[in-house]
Amino acid sequence: VSLRPTIDDVRRAAGRIAGEAVRTPLLASAVLDAAVGARVLLKCENLQRTGSFKFRGAYNAISPLGGEGRAGGVVAVSSGNHAQGVAAAAGLMGTPATIVMPADAPGVKLRRTEALGARIILYDRASEDREAIAARTIADHGGALIHPYNDPNVIAGQGTVGFEIAEDCAAWGVAPDAVVIPCGGGGLSAGVGLALHDAFPAIDLVLVEPAGFDDYALSLQAGHPVTNPATAGSICDALLSPSPGAIGFALNRVNGARAISVTDDEALAAVAFAFRELKLVVEPGGAVGLAALLSGNLRAYSGRTVVVVLSGGNIDPAIFEKALALP
Amino acid sequence: VSLRPTIDDVRRAAGRIAGEAVRTPLLASAVLDAAVGARVLLKCENLQRTGSFKFRGAYNAISPLGGEGRAGGVVAVSSGNHAQGVAAAAGLMGTPATIVMPADAPGVKLRRTEALGARIILYDRASEDREAIAARTIADHGGALIHPYNDPNVIAGQGTVGFEIAEDCAAWGVAPDAVVIPCGGGGLSAGVGLALHDAFPAIDLVLVEPAGFDDYALSLQAGHPVTNPATAGSICDALLSPSPGAIGFALNRVNGARAISVTDDEALAAVAFAFRELKLVVEPGGAVGLAALLSGNLRAYSGRTVVVVLSGGNIDPAIFEKALALP
Repeated sequence: VSLRPTIDDVRRAAGRIAGEAVRTPLLASAVLDAAVGARVLLKCENLQRTGSFKFRGAYNAISPLGGEGRAGGVVAVSSGNHAQGVAAAAGLMGTPATIVMPADAPGVKLRRTEALGARIILYDRASEDREAIAARTIADHGGALIHPYNDPNVIAGQGTVGFEIAEDCAAWGVAPDAVVIPCGGGGLSAGVGLALHDAFPAIDLVLVEPAGFDDYALSLQAGHPVTNPATAGSICDALLSPSPGAIGFALNRVNGARAISVTDDEALAAVAFAFRELKLVVEPGGAVGLAALLSGNLRAYSGRTVVVVLSGGNIDPAIFEKALALP
Repeated sequence: VSLRPTIDDVRRAAGRIAGEAVRTPLLASAVLDAAVGARVLLKCENLQRTGSFKFRGAYNAISPLGGEGRAGGVVAVSSGNHAQGVAAAAGLMGTPATIVMPADAPGVKLRRTEALGARIILYDRASEDREAIAARTIADHGGALIHPYNDPNVIAGQGTVGFEIAEDCAAWGVAPDAVVIPCGGGGLSAGVGLALHDAFPAIDLVLVEPAGFDDYALSLQAGHPVTNPATAGSICDALLSPSPGAIGFALNRVNGARAISVTDDEALAAVAFAFRELKLVVEPGGAVGLAALLSGNLRAYSGRTVVVVLSGGNIDPAIFEKALALP
């Protein structure tokens, strides 16, 4: 795999994860279509193994390390979904995993990562540098770093989400006008954009960030990666990475991506809509694409066909109940 | 369609509902497989239009009425899921719908049925006879009765659930050992059993009822339909019909069905498991098949392949929160 992954890398990743990852459904909802005035297809990565798309990239990055590389173990930094993806993929390959996680990560994510057999190192999101902690761990104990997004194998693995969307759309004779993707470090959007631009060259690529954590929008505007001033404070805990990864940023620029934001309340309203109407459990960060449509931020797609990625479903019951209690 | 539906009626139903019903996914979960020691495939009818499988049978029963028949309207009795199925299918065909619903039906089901444009007549489950109310409505105002389960077109429509399971299993090269189905009046199990016995003649057909509402188990034992003593009092509101429908009962007997029960707490624990591990919203009555596996009542299938139908997801937030609060 080259530094910038290609569609061939995505195809190879699809072969690697087959049988281990869930081939998640692309779902339609008459109620959703009526609510937003467009034909919406939901790619349900909340139904993926470990509850988010992250398993795909983690498996695709650990698998090529080979027997000796895998025996040395892997190290990752993650707010919780990449943590579970790495822990599950490493577990399947008999590889020890150490994950550096923020102390304020959702309890459900901490517990599930531990249950998958990983060793966890906690850090303080406001005062400590997680990359430095990971580097020190590797210097002391060895192990291969599995970056959550700035890694061509991880991006190619996440690209299988787009590859499956393209397969299903082709089978149904549908050419989507846009794909709407939750965006933290940009690995998912880079991979999905890569695969969908290959299948549908005219497709629009819309990234969605939490308000106040719009480093991708700022970076696309500036033409180079820019860092968020804030490090914490959104309910979308999965999308708080400080700045775009360089590899994904280059891909997203080439593919003409644009980025928009939704508020925490818009994300929670989408979580509640998914419960009430779609019967799906989605975490706030995983629901921002749906929120962008429901809040009216994407009216340009009225009457057109839009694919929305629901990227994860690992939500604490207290936050879920907060969403259901919204007026 | 004859009084006892055949596999050809199911095939015809599949053609009728195509494009209107959701072709729901058959999902696997590594965590679920590990928890129950079997390979489990979940047929997600909670993701169906209106939030339950009932849309299929309702659409398939209203569609053949023809223009004049449909113009006269339809009448149904339902605890809430058939109500929504009939209301939505009737709405699509421009047919007025009147639904007789128990006053203690979940609020979410009452509101959603109303939102779909149906007229609702409430009755008291303990003291009034819903069939008599429906008959009076038809005598006074006309309309065709769409029975929730004792109707060959309804059973053939529900059979499309089994038809799709068979298609997916065949595509994956899987021959399931058993199918586990929530059971109220027995229309879903009769249809699914019909379709799956056609595809896999050796498959076991396991119906699951709420404890205390095991009229199907008692009836299979007696060899003829028997009535529950209780009329209310289980959290599985979708499964409280008083006795098996005659048409489905004959089919289920021919197909060698057996029936088991789960408690309300087992059903709620399955609702919580679906939230936590599967990221699916399932109502208690829709989760009894999953509950039968998780509670250890179906250990006979250790190491084998079991299809479980999740039949609905229309749950009030308060009941959902009660499930999540279980220890």
